[in-house]
Amino acid sequence: MPKFVDAVIRRQEVVDAVFRIIAADGLERASLREVADEAQLAVGSVRHYFASSDELLTHAFAVVVDRIVGRLNDADSRLGDLAPGSAKHHAAVMALLGELLPLDEERAVDACVWMAFKNAARTKPFLAAEADRSHRAVAAVVGGLILGLAAGAESGGAAPNDDDSDGSAGVDQQVLVTEAELLLAVLDGLTMHALLQPEWMTALMCKDVLEAHLEGLNRRMTAGQQAINAS
Amino acid sequence: MPKFVDAVIRRQEVVDAVFRIIAADGLERASLREVADEAQLAVGSVRHYFASSDELLTHAFAVVVDRIVGRLNDADSRLGDLAPGSAKHHAAVMALLGELLPLDEERAVDACVWMAFKNAARTKPFLAAEADRSHRAVAAVVGGLILGLAAGAESGGAAPNDDDSDGSAGVDQQVLVTEAELLLAVLDGLTMHALLQPEWMTALMCKDVLEAHLEGLNRRMTAGQQAINAS
Repeated sequence: MPKFVDAVIRRQEVVDAVFRIIAADGLERASLREVADEAQLAVGSVRHYFASSDELLTHAFAVVVDRIVGRLNDADSRLGDLAPGSAKHHAAVMALLGELLPLDEERAVDACVWMAFKNAARTKPFLAAEADRSHRAVAAVVGGLILGLAAGAESGGAAPNDDDSDGSAGVDQQVLVTEAELLLAVLDGLTMHALLQPEWMTALMCKDVLEAHLEGLNRRMTAGQQAINAS
Repeated sequence: MPKFVDAVIRRQEVVDAVFRIIAADGLERASLREVADEAQLAVGSVRHYFASSDELLTHAFAVVVDRIVGRLNDADSRLGDLAPGSAKHHAAVMALLGELLPLDEERAVDACVWMAFKNAARTKPFLAAEADRSHRAVAAVVGGLILGLAAGAESGGAAPNDDDSDGSAGVDQQVLVTEAELLLAVLDGLTMHALLQPEWMTALMCKDVLEAHLEGLNRRMTAGQQAINAS
């Protein structure tokens, strides 16, 4: 095997070991020694790929953010041509937001690792830049979704790209920011509860709660637009 | 000073040191040695009051849960006689839920410590019983609030205790459970964002987002009841 391929695979094995440790025992146990043990490598071998624990953790954080943001962007691209208000659009929105929730084993590990890193960034400054990138990427997708729903309400259910309005007659900008922050809070709150109380906050319950929130969101967007049209 | 008073004060000083360490550096730094240093005591003195790190952390978790639940119950008792739908009731609901959010310095420390312990309970089984007690206490207050709003919608705005209905004609039980879980997710999500991005998710923004959610919740409760009345 060429040496650079070997290095890519080894680095990924080390990152996978970090993920397993975080999922089982929490981020504070992910020292170079524990990670080396988990990956069945010598500490020296791990050091060959990552100069320090900080470098390893920053890289592992970036890997999980890339994975989640990649899935989000894929799901987002499937929203494009669907008309807001249609059943297909709603299903695509649920699929998009479901990428952030621990709805199956793969997403549960990602969500658990992602939460651990985001929370750790509060007290570990070397994780702050990656936490910021993660937040911006998710906020951009969720903000875009809210804008799409608002544009759909404005044009009475046509797809956003069929709408040639300049948006000036749409729902107030501050309302859209508040709705985006509310949806982001719902997503992180549900993720937290699903990770901490998996026997109660099941995948089914997560979806039910998210459905209830989206129903209210759609109703508010439509009602807001009707109030504007009537004024 | 009598010896038992001294012990109560010393234990509280040690717990305060735990809180400061968690707020500044995270739970994983709250070892007996670090806590002793922070409290300016010898490790032996700390051990005199807490036999182990696990015992100290469990006690500190219980202290913050008691404090938050105490404030919640006080605020909850002020809701009792107010009519749902009235401005006074709404203000009391905001005050009640605001006890859980990091809206000022005292509540920010409590929320930060509380979040750290709840998250740590996932991987530290000795914290699980306290996490469970915390969850049940908050869920009981939030569940009671949702029931009160539903009863208010049912009786057309009278206070819940003026309502002698048996509740059988009210909004579906499953809807109430979903609304309670949604509100709990909003509260923990907002707390998380306010702690991780305090310059963006300010106290004002927290309140705006919570207001938006409560407005939607009230509308859903009223609409649900109207649908039942019309059927």
